[in-house]
Amino acid sequence: MSDKSCGPVARAVLQQCLQARLQVKAAQEHCDAEWVEVGRGMVIYVCFFKGATDDILPKMVSTLLNLRLCESESGRMVSVLELPGSVLVVPQATLGGKAKGRVMQYHNNIGKEDGLRLYTAFVALCQQEVAGVTLKHGTYGNRQVLKLDTNGPYTHLVDF
Amino acid sequence: MSDKSCGPVARAVLQQCLQARLQVKAAQEHCDAEWVEVGRGMVIYVCFFKGATDDILPKMVSTLLNLRLCESESGRMVSVLELPGSVLVVPQATLGGKAKGRVMQYHNNIGKEDGLRLYTAFVALCQQEVAGVTLKHGTYGNRQVLKLDTNGPYTHLVDF
Repeated sequence: MSDKSCGPVARAVLQQCLQARLQVKAAQEHCDAEWVEVGRGMVIYVCFFKGATDDILPKMVSTLLNLRLCESESGRMVSVLELPGSVLVVPQATLGGKAKGRVMQYHNNIGKEDGLRLYTAFVALCQQEVAGVTLKHGTYGNRQVLKLDTNGPYTHLVDF
Repeated sequence: MSDKSCGPVARAVLQQCLQARLQVKAAQEHCDAEWVEVGRGMVIYVCFFKGATDDILPKMVSTLLNLRLCESESGRMVSVLELPGSVLVVPQATLGGKAKGRVMQYHNNIGKEDGLRLYTAFVALCQQEVAGVTLKHGTYGNRQVLKLDTNGPYTHLVDF
């Protein structure tokens, strides 16, 4: 299948936020749910496809964190690191879906084990890069209960 | 350029919501900002590329409104119309961007005049299809100030 060799191995959707709150642990019988929260900055939704390897991660992290997508006080477009803003990473396997009739199919998504490994490495590499900027992230495999407050999400798609 | 003929002519990003609030008119000297609000349902971010024509709209609307992406009370996946849920349409030209170095370029985006015409027709066609379901939409060309409350956005991308 020719499109397998030229299709993306990872996908990110970026949204700007004033504040974002993400559940990282669901409530249980004797425990309240746990949440992480970031202020002004960027939400990175991320998904890996079959064929993705660790090789792609440095380029992904460098591209996503350095794109000039944030409006500074003076109206100039700067990166989330330059702003400086916070970063919230959200694992989002649904991004790998393809519409087939009335359902989404996820045949190109990476397996759960490799997905978790790449996601964990992606977050760790982001942590290294952001140095001094707040970075929070969702729990792989969880339902990503998210509350988002924006001054315009300026939703972007970046395939790798 | 061969990729012009096979690239998408429109792009939608879908997010599930419990509630969403969108500014449709910015505050002015003697006027408060105006907002629209929807309850549980789906946010459709939409962007048109060069080459898009009205021909694509019926397929887009039918696909987006009938995809089974919403979890019913019983846990079954149903469409937003079957839920029944609300729909919020958000014009989002940034979805057409392509990363080039540290900036996003929008060379493939449709012109503003054609974009407004297609967006308006898209919203009108959605209105027709949803019959009885609440549909709200953003103002083309505005900053889309958005507040989103989700139980998991389950972000999907659908290209046309």
